Amino acid sequence: MVQAVSAPGVIDLGPGYLEPSLLPVDEVLTLYAEALTEFGPAALTYGANAGAEPLRALLAARNGCTAEETMVTAGTSQALALLCTVLGRPGRSVVVERTSYDLGRRIMTDHGLRLREADGDGEGMRPQALDRALSHSDVAFVYLTPTFHNPTGTVAGESRRRKLLAVAARRGVPIVEDDAYTELSLDGTAPPPSLAVLARRRGVIRLGSFAKTLGPGLRLGWLEAEPDLIKRLTGRGQLVSGGALNHLTSLAVTMLMGDFRYDRRLARLREQLRVRRDALVSALQAVMDDSVTVNRPSGGFFVWLTFDPQRSEASLLAAASRAGVAVAPGSRFGSEAGTHLRLAYSFNSPDRLAAAAARLAAAWRNEETPR
Amino acid sequence: MVQAVSAPGVIDLGPGYLEPSLLPVDEVLTLYAEALTEFGPAALTYGANAGAEPLRALLAARNGCTAEETMVTAGTSQALALLCTVLGRPGRSVVVERTSYDLGRRIMTDHGLRLREADGDGEGMRPQALDRALSHSDVAFVYLTPTFHNPTGTVAGESRRRKLLAVAARRGVPIVEDDAYTELSLDGTAPPPSLAVLARRRGVIRLGSFAKTLGPGLRLGWLEAEPDLIKRLTGRGQLVSGGALNHLTSLAVTMLMGDFRYDRRLARLREQLRVRRDALVSALQAVMDDSVTVNRPSGGFFVWLTFDPQRSEASLLAAASRAGVAVAPGSRFGSEAGTHLRLAYSFNSPDRLAAAAARLAAAWRNEETPR
Repeated sequence: MVQAVSAPGVIDLGPGYLEPSLLPVDEVLTLYAEALTEFGPAALTYGANAGAEPLRALLAARNGCTAEETMVTAGTSQALALLCTVLGRPGRSVVVERTSYDLGRRIMTDHGLRLREADGDGEGMRPQALDRALSHSDVAFVYLTPTFHNPTGTVAGESRRRKLLAVAARRGVPIVEDDAYTELSLDGTAPPPSLAVLARRRGVIRLGSFAKTLGPGLRLGWLEAEPDLIKRLTGRGQLVSGGALNHLTSLAVTMLMGDFRYDRRLARLREQLRVRRDALVSALQAVMDDSVTVNRPSGGFFVWLTFDPQRSEASLLAAASRAGVAVAPGSRFGSEAGTHLRLAYSFNSPDRLAAAAARLAAAWRNEETPR
Repeated sequence: MVQAVSAPGVIDLGPGYLEPSLLPVDEVLTLYAEALTEFGPAALTYGANAGAEPLRALLAARNGCTAEETMVTAGTSQALALLCTVLGRPGRSVVVERTSYDLGRRIMTDHGLRLREADGDGEGMRPQALDRALSHSDVAFVYLTPTFHNPTGTVAGESRRRKLLAVAARRGVPIVEDDAYTELSLDGTAPPPSLAVLARRRGVIRLGSFAKTLGPGLRLGWLEAEPDLIKRLTGRGQLVSGGALNHLTSLAVTMLMGDFRYDRRLARLREQLRVRRDALVSALQAVMDDSVTVNRPSGGFFVWLTFDPQRSEASLLAAASRAGVAVAPGSRFGSEAGTHLRLAYSFNSPDRLAAAAARLAAAWRNEETPR
């Protein structure tokens, strides 16, 4: 009935999901009750094409823009698919980081767009690499995740962000900023301002989501862009016909964002994720030998492991699987040289995360010998 | 906050919406409570790509197909947009009835598809016209509404349906059957079997919706097709990434469909719509002169008026507006020769519908003289 169901006994560090106990079941029910009471039948009819004004206004205030620069989406993946049909067309290309979110890539190739991979470093895409990629005239847009990158966990600093913006602006190509994890900073310091804020949304389309903060089953997110593009997007037949995406749900979330409850929820969730990240990272650092580099992300859901390039991803995965731990292969996220694995700390309790680290260390130590 | 807001004093026969009093606010709240209680956190996580199995199973049983032939959608408009990207590509064409749903047309042209219009009659598209249109090799699919057509209200008989199916099958072109109104038969007799049932879904994709029976704000519908196409659709990156469309809402509707409540809701709604249709049609027939033909639809939301072709749509609309009645111009739905208007009986009480008919008759009588 749901996407990821782990085999019994397996500790699943694969999916970028919240652990079921972190999903706010009772709170969500309260929100629907409040929205249906507050808005009555207006919550069940066709919503305004760009989304319900109360939510747009709250999102705009939170994100430092205007309601005219904000529309409601059915999540980041729906927003990206919509952008592929509006900004792109089959045969054109998108510039992506060489290592980047696999399903974001797939959404773009589904729409007939080709991927031009640009090299990155510890801050994500390098400006020179972007500039080279943009020398091709067929680029529809650039797809970036500068904050708590999936899968690498990297964060681009403000200076890097400004350089990337300058390159894209000079070339006249828009940037789609996938910012699903930005609220989940785990060390008490906010990440640098989004590309959208730095550029005052000129040439930047920012995708936000409630999937990582409330629950993906709500299928709710938003998009920030220049008002002209918002008008083009909300003028699409699908929205004029069906009205706002997830109108009732957007009103339920309006009730949450309209008072202190959303910030309280985020504060609690950050603490729950921080404890999980620390449990996994500490355990990994304690048990892994020098052949593995463990990053310590400052936010998001993922630890990115870097192995000696001679080690085989397939045999690391197989050994993990035999030890009862599921992880995500780095190759799924692109063609970066080297051997990598992605471990999510969002989907298990701290105890299970520590146990997973011990299992992995033992498995990989044993796996090395007979190779 | 919502799509259609009428000016004070205006009786709005324009939009194909349910009247607010017909939207089941309390019942929907109960359904969300039941779903969150029954499924807990599983209702808030990523749902299975094709939609939650319990709903797929209930839909399949109701529609005479299998769960493998069924996927959950975010409504007919989302489903049609998805099909445009999977079955079509910019530059190809779609065959549509010359008079057909304006926003369905727009969703297709938004995706770069060109429209090939085929002539119709009192049963919708004519098979010979379809055959002629399909002699072009660039047709991606045929878009049809054989049951309670929007805007004309027509129903294709079973023989007509079989002929259209035979033509499309011979040409090897799939049919998209927009079947949003099919549950809303108003005279106690079911419409003929859907194209999907007649063809056992071979080459037919049927779009269903809860927008007309429960509430469009839920943004929930479904799609029936051959299992291979369902696999292609649910394998799109958008669904693999975001999971099922409107997972939580689909579980809420599962609670409704899982017992007698959905049928009870439909029975009540059909009666409420029947009273409204009769109020509008009787009043129109009583007050209109011979220059206007009033159809009496056997289901759906709309009365289709046919005027003397010499009469100007613009002046009929203007006179209606001066009299405080909003209606939809026939020209919005395509290029059918003649003068037509579409009147929705779904969005107002029987008393207001009768009052609207009287206002329109007076307005159009007066409008004729000074012309």
